[in-house]
Amino acid sequence: MRYELYYWPTIQGRGEFIRLALEEAGAEYLDVARLPERDGMGMPALLRMLESDETIRPPFAPPFLKAGDLILGQTAGILLFLGPRLGLAPEDEAGRLWVHQLQLTMADLVTEAHDTHHPVASGLYYKDQKPEALRRAADFTGTRIPKFLGYFESVLARNPRGDDYIAGDALSYADLSLFQIIAGLRYAFPRTMKNLMPGHPRLDALHERVAKRPRIAAYLASERRLPFNKDGIFRHYKELDA
Amino acid sequence: MRYELYYWPTIQGRGEFIRLALEEAGAEYLDVARLPERDGMGMPALLRMLESDETIRPPFAPPFLKAGDLILGQTAGILLFLGPRLGLAPEDEAGRLWVHQLQLTMADLVTEAHDTHHPVASGLYYKDQKPEALRRAADFTGTRIPKFLGYFESVLARNPRGDDYIAGDALSYADLSLFQIIAGLRYAFPRTMKNLMPGHPRLDALHERVAKRPRIAAYLASERRLPFNKDGIFRHYKELDA
Repeated sequence: MRYELYYWPTIQGRGEFIRLALEEAGAEYLDVARLPERDGMGMPALLRMLESDETIRPPFAPPFLKAGDLILGQTAGILLFLGPRLGLAPEDEAGRLWVHQLQLTMADLVTEAHDTHHPVASGLYYKDQKPEALRRAADFTGTRIPKFLGYFESVLARNPRGDDYIAGDALSYADLSLFQIIAGLRYAFPRTMKNLMPGHPRLDALHERVAKRPRIAAYLASERRLPFNKDGIFRHYKELDA
Repeated sequence: MRYELYYWPTIQGRGEFIRLALEEAGAEYLDVARLPERDGMGMPALLRMLESDETIRPPFAPPFLKAGDLILGQTAGILLFLGPRLGLAPEDEAGRLWVHQLQLTMADLVTEAHDTHHPVASGLYYKDQKPEALRRAADFTGTRIPKFLGYFESVLARNPRGDDYIAGDALSYADLSLFQIIAGLRYAFPRTMKNLMPGHPRLDALHERVAKRPRIAAYLASERRLPFNKDGIFRHYKELDA
């Protein structure tokens, strides 16, 4: 199966959670919007799919994945589908539901991270909602990041199979996503994370462990890994990391 | 199977999506935090579960569901689990993923509805974030509600099995959730919805159809259905519906 990922071509964003799973599995995939328009790909291909009246089950927004005839939207839903196929989810139903539940909690965190710089409207520039952003970011760094990190650290500590992985005794897409969350928060809120991470040694170790996996390390060193930047979900504005 | 639902006892909130599915199916369930403390239930029972260090797979926040030994968090994840068991999800994997995807998009809408009155911090009162709320709500009513309603109307219009249900030719939990979304938006933003709903006849009809289902109608008329109020996710503040 050759998968087709449709996501904005210039940011990691929510698409990165899918990319990491596909990369770790060594899956064959096209990152459609990043491929040349002359080959029928690029942004026009993404917009064609997004705006088509023909799609019976249309996605609401990127990322979405094409797998054969299936078109799937919603990051956590895509990973629910991919997990077993890529060997990145537990075999049993309870385990799969648990990994999915962790992913949904990370999705909530991602939305809150986005809203630190866009607390009023996604359609406005950051500079046009900066006073609101300052207040929202203060709550995010002071209350919400500690709550989320404390939760995931405690999940690792409670894992009866040890704290090498967030669920069970094997890598799942939730580990890859947790790596991305830590990386993103460190990029966007370096001061906050420098203060917080010493209190979360298991999360720190998990981030390191994932980064060193051969396929992930190769991906991170490649041009396929877009850098963090000020268009993505995790953005660094010094004043929001006070 | 007698399910135990754990959710805040005084609001519909995210728990209502689970309640509607359990009610439609005529499932046996305890709404734990709304039952008497003298029977070991009530808020203390909810907090005990939420704060326990013993839970191997702890939920991040209510709602969560206890089903035998299983404890499940995240509204959309709970419905993913319950759907097939309550006869409220398609039989095939593609159908189930589609219904789940719709639920995840509704979850995004619910978060945005919440953030109209709490754009800065959930821990602050509305009155302490009112200027921010006014700006965020203007975007929500002017841009986001139309986008979400347009999406779901178009999904109904495209359903090859007709527009009686949001997916396929049978009721799913996504129909119940869509009913709740329309009801909640109408409560919170009556002026906006009065303007918008005539342009979305399929959604309007679906809302009516669900409300008239015998078990849902009985539930809505019962004391088990909490009224909308100013503590829940859908809140009516006249100034936010301008």
